[in-house]
Amino acid sequence: MRVLAFLDGTLADPDQAHLRVDDLGVLRGDGIFETILVTGGRPRELGPHLDRLARSAAMMDLPEPDRAAWERVVQLVIDNWSGSTEIALKLVLTRGIEGDPSSTPTAFALGMEIDEKVKRARAEGIAAITLDRGIGTDVAERAPWLLLGAKSLSYAINMAAVREAARRGAADVIFTATDGSVLEGPTSTVIVARGRTLYTPPPTIGILPGTTQGDVFRAAERAGWTTKVEPLRADELAAADGVFLASSVRKLTRVHTLDGEALPDSAEVHAELANVYEAQYA
Amino acid sequence: MRVLAFLDGTLADPDQAHLRVDDLGVLRGDGIFETILVTGGRPRELGPHLDRLARSAAMMDLPEPDRAAWERVVQLVIDNWSGSTEIALKLVLTRGIEGDPSSTPTAFALGMEIDEKVKRARAEGIAAITLDRGIGTDVAERAPWLLLGAKSLSYAINMAAVREAARRGAADVIFTATDGSVLEGPTSTVIVARGRTLYTPPPTIGILPGTTQGDVFRAAERAGWTTKVEPLRADELAAADGVFLASSVRKLTRVHTLDGEALPDSAEVHAELANVYEAQYA
Repeated sequence: MRVLAFLDGTLADPDQAHLRVDDLGVLRGDGIFETILVTGGRPRELGPHLDRLARSAAMMDLPEPDRAAWERVVQLVIDNWSGSTEIALKLVLTRGIEGDPSSTPTAFALGMEIDEKVKRARAEGIAAITLDRGIGTDVAERAPWLLLGAKSLSYAINMAAVREAARRGAADVIFTATDGSVLEGPTSTVIVARGRTLYTPPPTIGILPGTTQGDVFRAAERAGWTTKVEPLRADELAAADGVFLASSVRKLTRVHTLDGEALPDSAEVHAELANVYEAQYA
Repeated sequence: MRVLAFLDGTLADPDQAHLRVDDLGVLRGDGIFETILVTGGRPRELGPHLDRLARSAAMMDLPEPDRAAWERVVQLVIDNWSGSTEIALKLVLTRGIEGDPSSTPTAFALGMEIDEKVKRARAEGIAAITLDRGIGTDVAERAPWLLLGAKSLSYAINMAAVREAARRGAADVIFTATDGSVLEGPTSTVIVARGRTLYTPPPTIGILPGTTQGDVFRAAERAGWTTKVEPLRADELAAADGVFLASSVRKLTRVHTLDGEALPDSAEVHAELANVYEAQYA
């Protein structure tokens, strides 16, 4: 099932048309989004998601999102949900109608079911490939107009990368920078485990600050792990004790195979981290 | 005025909603487009535009566009147009509904009026700035998943670049590669004149093949000009006899100021080329 609500508090039928064809979200991919996991009627990490939505809006010169209104519309979708116990809840904000200076942003929340494929990935892990993202790690700070680190609706490249993975028999991608640094997944953050330390690359290199990664790191720290935000090299991934892709909907997903090579078995590390992460929502 | 027609031949009211919120064109900027100039009831360079639409579709693993259907829908919009003598005609094709394997692409043609700003730019020229695109010229061939050279709906970066230009008191942008090569404008192709020769960079460096640029080059050749498709350096632009941005709607627009510095007066060169280009549509 799908539940749709607009930011003004209107519930609407998701199977009907609600957007004009000249919405800039369609014509230009000109807008921002967040995807939030709802379990047991509670949105996970709503605060960090709304923080990031505001950050994306600022990077794209969009009006500052109305935080209270977004909180209300999230609750409205949850209150009207009668599907499975988990919801993938998307928040979308576009720049509005093309060529109409009086146009206000288009803003809605859409609750969706979680794919079976995602649930399998959570349980079994996935094969991933590394793909060149074509940029250096110094680009984001030098060229803010490239919107690196903004969660925009312009995700065609991200989707193309996932199709390339499928062509190579894998389910997901780890993007690398031109200097061999690890960036991020098309829809996830990379986390690496070495011993009792977790690593993730810094957002300053042109990647999204991960909400789920942040959540996992905080939970892991409470459980005695050390966490470090620092550059990672792609050629070091194969020797790690665990390579994970963190995203709201997939949670912490284990990468068991990278570029066709089996990685060291990280099932135990994954189980421990997944438990630590999940315990706070029990 | 705006005239909207779907690819199946249905005319529709553009002021009404026609798209679902879970169309992948909205949620992921996952689709392709073309913008065609219609003058005197005739679409300019329709063949090259449909060729490029097909090329973009192939690069993005979308179904091959139905050429005859697109030709019909273009004519349908033109036949129902009662606005100014010029139309900016957008063709849009998205991947369809998210998560629905039976979904077919969303496909429509939208006729729009030409902005007054565009008409002024055609007549008076514009100020532009160069902006780093953050990529090398070898990336497109090495990393096709980055969709460089596909005209996708994911144009958030292109729009952000134009906003950056406005912040710097300019109207448009010339993107440069990390090695200082000229790439393209966010919605245009760069053409440079030196003596009686026109230059434009090769699409292999990761830019769109320009339909208007191709049209201008063919017309200029017939008028005795030499044309060359070869790499251009950004630091050579200031010394050229003319720097132009070519796009369907703006035609050949003269850049009179680059990065705040006045360029050599190219009004005469521009007038000659604009005449040569326009004469074929008289």
